[in-house]
Amino acid sequence: MKRLFLIATLLGAAPALADEGMWTYNNFPSAKVKEKYGFEPTQQWLDKVRLSSARLAGGCSASFVSPEGLVMTNHHCARGCIQQLSTAKKDYIANGFYAKAQAEETKCPAMEINQLESITDVTAELNKATQGLSGKQYADTLKAKMSELEQSCSAGNAKVRCDVVTLYQGGQYNLYKYRRFQDVRLVMAPEHAIAFFGGDPDNFEFPRYDLDVTFLRVYEDGKPADTSKNYFKWSEKGAKEGELTFISGHPGRTSRGLTIAELEFHRDVQLPKTLMQLSELRGMIAEFQKRGPEQKRISNNLLFGVENSLKASKGRHEALLDKKFFAQKVAAEQELRKKVESNPEMKKKYGAAWDEIAKAQEQYRNFRTEHLFKEQGLNGASDLFYIARTLVRGAEELQKENGQRLREFSQAGIPNLEARLFSPAPIYPELETARLAFTLSKMREELGADHPFVKKVLGKESPEKLAARVVKGSKLADVKVRQALYKGGQAAVDASKDPMIELAKLVDPDARAVRKQFEENVEAVIRKNSELIAKAKFEVYGTNQYPDATFSLRLSYGSVKGYTEDGKQVAPITQMANTFDRHTGEDPFALPQSWLKSQNVLTGSTPMNFVSTNDIIGGNSGSPVINKDGEIVGLVFDGNIQSLGGEYGFDESVNRAVSVHSEAIIESLKKIYGATRVLEELRPGSTKVPPVKANPAG
Amino acid sequence: MKRLFLIATLLGAAPALADEGMWTYNNFPSAKVKEKYGFEPTQQWLDKVRLSSARLAGGCSASFVSPEGLVMTNHHCARGCIQQLSTAKKDYIANGFYAKAQAEETKCPAMEINQLESITDVTAELNKATQGLSGKQYADTLKAKMSELEQSCSAGNAKVRCDVVTLYQGGQYNLYKYRRFQDVRLVMAPEHAIAFFGGDPDNFEFPRYDLDVTFLRVYEDGKPADTSKNYFKWSEKGAKEGELTFISGHPGRTSRGLTIAELEFHRDVQLPKTLMQLSELRGMIAEFQKRGPEQKRISNNLLFGVENSLKASKGRHEALLDKKFFAQKVAAEQELRKKVESNPEMKKKYGAAWDEIAKAQEQYRNFRTEHLFKEQGLNGASDLFYIARTLVRGAEELQKENGQRLREFSQAGIPNLEARLFSPAPIYPELETARLAFTLSKMREELGADHPFVKKVLGKESPEKLAARVVKGSKLADVKVRQALYKGGQAAVDASKDPMIELAKLVDPDARAVRKQFEENVEAVIRKNSELIAKAKFEVYGTNQYPDATFSLRLSYGSVKGYTEDGKQVAPITQMANTFDRHTGEDPFALPQSWLKSQNVLTGSTPMNFVSTNDIIGGNSGSPVINKDGEIVGLVFDGNIQSLGGEYGFDESVNRAVSVHSEAIIESLKKIYGATRVLEELRPGSTKVPPVKANPAG
Repeated sequence: MKRLFLIATLLGAAPALADEGMWTYNNFPSAKVKEKYGFEPTQQWLDKVRLSSARLAGGCSASFVSPEGLVMTNHHCARGCIQQLSTAKKDYIANGFYAKAQAEETKCPAMEINQLESITDVTAELNKATQGLSGKQYADTLKAKMSELEQSCSAGNAKVRCDVVTLYQGGQYNLYKYRRFQDVRLVMAPEHAIAFFGGDPDNFEFPRYDLDVTFLRVYEDGKPADTSKNYFKWSEKGAKEGELTFISGHPGRTSRGLTIAELEFHRDVQLPKTLMQLSELRGMIAEFQKRGPEQKRISNNLLFGVENSLKASKGRHEALLDKKFFAQKVAAEQELRKKVESNPEMKKKYGAAWDEIAKAQEQYRNFRTEHLFKEQGLNGASDLFYIARTLVRGAEELQKENGQRLREFSQAGIPNLEARLFSPAPIYPELETARLAFTLSKMREELGADHPFVKKVLGKESPEKLAARVVKGSKLADVKVRQALYKGGQAAVDASKDPMIELAKLVDPDARAVRKQFEENVEAVIRKNSELIAKAKFEVYGTNQYPDATFSLRLSYGSVKGYTEDGKQVAPITQMANTFDRHTGEDPFALPQSWLKSQNVLTGSTPMNFVSTNDIIGGNSGSPVINKDGEIVGLVFDGNIQSLGGEYGFDESVNRAVSVHSEAIIESLKKIYGATRVLEELRPGSTKVPPVKANPAG
Repeated sequence: MKRLFLIATLLGAAPALADEGMWTYNNFPSAKVKEKYGFEPTQQWLDKVRLSSARLAGGCSASFVSPEGLVMTNHHCARGCIQQLSTAKKDYIANGFYAKAQAEETKCPAMEINQLESITDVTAELNKATQGLSGKQYADTLKAKMSELEQSCSAGNAKVRCDVVTLYQGGQYNLYKYRRFQDVRLVMAPEHAIAFFGGDPDNFEFPRYDLDVTFLRVYEDGKPADTSKNYFKWSEKGAKEGELTFISGHPGRTSRGLTIAELEFHRDVQLPKTLMQLSELRGMIAEFQKRGPEQKRISNNLLFGVENSLKASKGRHEALLDKKFFAQKVAAEQELRKKVESNPEMKKKYGAAWDEIAKAQEQYRNFRTEHLFKEQGLNGASDLFYIARTLVRGAEELQKENGQRLREFSQAGIPNLEARLFSPAPIYPELETARLAFTLSKMREELGADHPFVKKVLGKESPEKLAARVVKGSKLADVKVRQALYKGGQAAVDASKDPMIELAKLVDPDARAVRKQFEENVEAVIRKNSELIAKAKFEVYGTNQYPDATFSLRLSYGSVKGYTEDGKQVAPITQMANTFDRHTGEDPFALPQSWLKSQNVLTGSTPMNFVSTNDIIGGNSGSPVINKDGEIVGLVFDGNIQSLGGEYGFDESVNRAVSVHSEAIIESLKKIYGATRVLEELRPGSTKVPPVKANPAG
């Protein structure tokens, strides 16, 4: 793998003619696209694309693809739902799912879809509110003002979600107003074996052969929602080599604007520790799966998530370990600092910002482990603990004024919080116990057996015993129990003897204290000073820049284009026929029966997957790839291995988005799955000729 | 944890008065010890200590502690043997072992003990042989000459082992001649629960409460060997705070003399990758243990090894990530290079060495993964594969002239190789399968599913299927089968259909090719140029330096002394009474019954463990700690967490060796284990008063 990183923006200037940038819809460089590709998106075009795009609140992208609320996303984005609807006897992950009639479309227990209705710049209001403040006062005021703006925007309407989005590390604040769909049903999903063909070994690799697609439908008042005004039509032929492509989606996070002190923290502390922890967890879950087929089934989703994060983190770490790349980042920061230093007024305003961030980062090194295990660790390790903590904290937080609450309990976030808290998604005690024991033993390892918090949590128990006891004894798997405690408030929580609630109560004072320490001494300092650096960048380089990704809607442009890897040219488009060459019969290279028996009727030359130069990152999974006519030509499901360094910088020579080709979707819906109902919605009239049946005789 | 690293030798100069250095016996700084501690070891003193020291060929240190061949080492050094002698019904790991009579002393299946009889400087001979050579020629000639020297030293005597030891990265070559003992029997071992009390959470930590001791005995001709001329007597009171202590043992490896290019490789490539792989393996084995008690028993030893390496590697990585520390290393190299550059003659001889090493290191980055999986990976993953490869290669290598063979097949190494190859130690198929499958899946992951070597090895099988097939089908667990193949030579190996032999044959051409590439293009270049740098250091700084550790006998000096950690003073000696405070009843903080029922009869103030400033590292485990009278005052079993950075530099302010106090050994042998036979040997006459029996009434 070659990493070139000839990145214009590294030096702070606006990208030249590279297809770089995850652009906001209110600052899209249409003129630049025209200059390179001869097509200039109009405001109307942008509005239509924005409103046809969708976000899965859980962390993915999607799009509306029919007038009747049909939504397309990745299989791996919907697999939480698919797994939750499965049981040991009806395994939709293994066997796929298809609702032959609308009545068979099944509600996902915990899924929410958002559509971005408007963007408002609220920078001035927030800057005014926080002027002259720092530390705790700055953090509290910012939080309170954000909550106020969000609340007044949603105005108590449960169908509206409003988020203040921090852009350019605080250089801008925009209020994003979403329409929310909370009744989301599963329509069609292929088998996991083809959705994730090649599994972890092929993940982030190309050439690739995955049908990573799932169709959902949003409902309103028990009926398919009307999306006739804004949805993407389906292209006739799909993406072609060299064609201009746009990707509209929700890149989760990039760190291109971070200071060197922050990048060093990523490189030397956060990433190495994360990589070790994920590696160990992966080893544990992979072996847990060998307990039996049911244990494998219930832990597949978790294993996928862990392996995916692990590979992505590895790629990021390698990018930062690239000495040339890092030197470019250092040079860019030095250039900006020099410019700031040379201007007395700028120096006064911005000159100290970098060192302030470095100091905060240095401080954080000393208590990162405490922060991790007291505030974050257990929460991520167990659904039951998450529920218990939410109930324990909710009882306290919801008594406070909106602006005083912990951020996740702000009024605007309540519908989301309740949806997750009362989700009927199954909870698997065996897996909960294993994960919680794992995290408790890591806590003891990292903080040390003599640490007061460790002694407080474990007492005389081993991590395994404690985990088994609190999982076994807890009644929180029952949604009604949660509802009663939630409604019962502080008194009910105080009186509860549920061992998971008791554990959450036990750790809460320490968890809150370390969170406060983090928010006031680290986060607030970094936020405030990042805001200053962002302003310095605007002053020095102008506003024709894109902000780091923040899981808010962005538009990127590029074209279908191969690249060179280890001296070899990689062609941009794979074909369906070659999918079968890769079949070994052994997981993860085992095709499902439906594919094997359809091999002869498929048109082998149908494009399967393709790469394009669009600048994307995790969170963009499920994003539509569209042509200049706003038609679907593909579905993003991955980036190549080189794209992982995109967290820190974009290198057009090798950084690629990886998508399912629109024609592969059509071909398989038609000839493998006989999914006429879906086909007819995507391409009205296309199913008048009955789909050809699989014919082993050829 | 604070890391200070005010290290004299970092700057290339000889250490000032810090207790730094793992000194060779032929260059011990006696005068410096006298200057600081008022005691000057004589040649006679040094000879006696050297000959009373011992090495476990498997990777630990030990000492002779009686005239009749009694050997003391750590429990964790002998646990391979203890586990091999155990069965599901007689678990000596869990329950301990004590041979009440000599006849009950049981032979360890695969243990060899070495005693260093002499050291000869052979630098001139080797330099002469390799003069003017480079690359393959240099490597081949060096290897051949080393083999020749070793062979002529041992002269076919199976009781003699000779190793040419490369010191100062090639600045010196010394021939170490050992007496070898291959009949080693288990005499006494406490329960694992007290030997490794605190388990992994307490590993590399202090304060500490472990009885990590085991007694062995070397036999000759079926009788206890006569060691009456050279053995350590037992001190009357053991180590006291402030007392001068010597540690004679076999530190395995340090990397203090490496160039910056090599250290960067450690920091950015080798350690991060090792940490991830060990973490994942750890997660896997820890979960494997949950398959059942027998699976736990058979995998405990492996898990211990993995966790120990993992924690040690973490410590090393953290040391290299310490920016100040690394800057000191850079400054030291720059200083030396500047001195070399400023002298035309030195510049000509040595000036290019650093860049040559950097280039070789850079080259290695491109094929490290191949090297790892083709040559090393499978070998470390399965005992059966190791046996198969040794047989496959042996058939070919043993036909060659001694100097032409792969190093491990040189005549001098044959007794060792055969001892391992024909060891009757049990092989556990379930664990073999799990480990091999794990490594095969890592191979596929790291090299990629499309890599020709991966395709060749896996074919259409999954890693799990392949591993299960070759382990299940192999007969190599039977020592007789191995002997027959070994004796049968090439013809027998060629004819063998044993699936593990077939796998070893399949991978061997690729493995040999990558090994050759490594040895000629990387190792030889680094060796040759390191030799040049070492000579430059001698020219610039003189010869009053110690070489990096090489698992050869060294002597370090220091004193019993506490240290400061996170602002708190850590006392240097713990007491037996506090061991019981740490007991929670849950593994790894559960004391064995023998201790619990003896609590009342123990003298609580007896020293348990202690720290000293001696400079040690992994491989020193089992080393005797002696006073100036050459008496045992303790037994090294660990270093504190700060000592892990000792791989790269010594910081006397916090770097500590951790030892079992000699009095804790006596007290427990007497009052807990009633091991009168051992006690009488350690302290003749001490058991005339019968041992006090445990008395629960106090």
